[in-house]
Amino acid sequence: MRSIVVAIALVLLPSWSLADPLPSWNDTETKAAILDFVQATTMPGSDRYVDPAARIATFDNDGNLWAEQPVYFQLIYALDKAKAMVAADPSLAEKSAGMKAAADGDMQTLLADGHKGLLEVMAVSHSGMTTDEFKDEVETWLETTKHPETGRRYDEMVYQPMLELLTYLRDRDYKTYIVSGGGIDFIRVFSERAYGIPPEQVVGSSIKATFEVSDDTAETVKSPELFFIDDKEGKPVAINQHIGRRPVIASGNSDGDLQMMQYATRGDRNALAILLHHTDADREWAYDKGSKVGGLDKALVEAKQRGWLVIDMKADWRTVFPWELEKR
Amino acid sequence: MRSIVVAIALVLLPSWSLADPLPSWNDTETKAAILDFVQATTMPGSDRYVDPAARIATFDNDGNLWAEQPVYFQLIYALDKAKAMVAADPSLAEKSAGMKAAADGDMQTLLADGHKGLLEVMAVSHSGMTTDEFKDEVETWLETTKHPETGRRYDEMVYQPMLELLTYLRDRDYKTYIVSGGGIDFIRVFSERAYGIPPEQVVGSSIKATFEVSDDTAETVKSPELFFIDDKEGKPVAINQHIGRRPVIASGNSDGDLQMMQYATRGDRNALAILLHHTDADREWAYDKGSKVGGLDKALVEAKQRGWLVIDMKADWRTVFPWELEKR
Repeated sequence: MRSIVVAIALVLLPSWSLADPLPSWNDTETKAAILDFVQATTMPGSDRYVDPAARIATFDNDGNLWAEQPVYFQLIYALDKAKAMVAADPSLAEKSAGMKAAADGDMQTLLADGHKGLLEVMAVSHSGMTTDEFKDEVETWLETTKHPETGRRYDEMVYQPMLELLTYLRDRDYKTYIVSGGGIDFIRVFSERAYGIPPEQVVGSSIKATFEVSDDTAETVKSPELFFIDDKEGKPVAINQHIGRRPVIASGNSDGDLQMMQYATRGDRNALAILLHHTDADREWAYDKGSKVGGLDKALVEAKQRGWLVIDMKADWRTVFPWELEKR
Repeated sequence: MRSIVVAIALVLLPSWSLADPLPSWNDTETKAAILDFVQATTMPGSDRYVDPAARIATFDNDGNLWAEQPVYFQLIYALDKAKAMVAADPSLAEKSAGMKAAADGDMQTLLADGHKGLLEVMAVSHSGMTTDEFKDEVETWLETTKHPETGRRYDEMVYQPMLELLTYLRDRDYKTYIVSGGGIDFIRVFSERAYGIPPEQVVGSSIKATFEVSDDTAETVKSPELFFIDDKEGKPVAINQHIGRRPVIASGNSDGDLQMMQYATRGDRNALAILLHHTDADREWAYDKGSKVGGLDKALVEAKQRGWLVIDMKADWRTVFPWELEKR
């Protein structure tokens, strides 16, 4: 009889009570603050308790859930795709200076005139196919392309401590969302596999789409026109649009995430803003103010002023990438 | 010992096995087809089994989950709000012919020139406040306004059989979404309370928003410019944008839902399109082709051609509105 009671108790008790949910985090104040906030918002009777339905946690993607150096991975995809398109149809390089520069690897031209060439490449490489075809192409690229410095697949370059945080939050009935300046269809290709975040919980930038139907097909087709930029002040707007509730936890790593953190916390809301500071040049990269990707300046100043939680990657993370665990 | 086993079994067994999940539906072929499809897509081992993560069901709102006669309820809200705004500030009527017509109850002017006046009224009545303020205003309106014919609150005029269907689907791990031509912020005010559908599962039309931040506030503010019309070919586009998966069940009642149903079913997908036909002038309203709200023509033709499920409200529904149950 006693063993049955124990067995039932083990089935019914949440698993989080049994082990450290964040083993890849060092035992610093940062980890303690995260554990404290999550406990306080999920323990019935706590004065900071949050109803499960309202437990929304939003995460930036580039530089926050996966790496973003030497340049945003989606940009590498766009350049690879542009090169392949020009190889297959050289006339594309005649029609577009951006496509020509991409094929030539000419970053200077791509970045000139306010990134004009690059925007052309993004539009051409990301449109003119169905959403499903686009996802298949990205999937193939992810399967066949390696990061120039680590030699790893791009979707392996995710942060182990953040994976643990996502799982911990979901175990505590938080709904985890990506809110990214990157492309929504691009991220959806790997978000479920890499992070356990389903497509409907991915919010991102997007281009327009059209609906095309025939007797036996019905597809959304990606069009080269911009629809929405989910960055800076676009993030709160997109959170309101897609989720319709404010985040209780907002996690990011750059000035592009500042407004999302303000939206979550202003007015002494019962909320946690978490800012990841890239401080580890040995295991990852070290950058902040002035970096061409993931620039971090204003958000770091405001984080210190307002007492937001700042993750010091070097000090706070025992492990950075999942493959480090295999060595042990 | 035996009683413990029974107790555990009762806790673990899904509740749907114990009773009719659709008591307000008559025992017609329509009900049987719904039960059959849901069983087939949720029973492990079935050749039509759908993974729980992919169980997406999308529902139109106006005329599908709640009534839409004599005119869309959100339009009544906009006209009520416009009247109140002009009463408080008569200069608004001088600046806008639409606002003047709304204040005068002059529908002819509102509908002239391709609904120009009406669109003005929609824009003015729905913008210039924070999203939270807008929701508070709609909430107050819902609490204080009665439908001109039934004398009921608008958010009581929901269809009991659809409430049962939503609950049944959720019990079978379907994720239920609203995909409506109506305003996303408007519907979110009552969707959780009325249908058990949380804000993040509401997709709708929207106007633009801006982000405004101060030292102690951070708000999204509704702006009068149109952002997206979630109707007809907009519905598949919005489903792809918000959900990122095709619906397995798509439910609607008008030609505005045709493309959503095509998107779900084309190519002999394992999917169910459900079309509600308003055939009950005694208990609700009877309308289809040529109706100024919820016009239904092409979708009914295609439903018959393609063998989609058509709900005949009069024949298939035992109960229409929840208050009918109180009389029994």
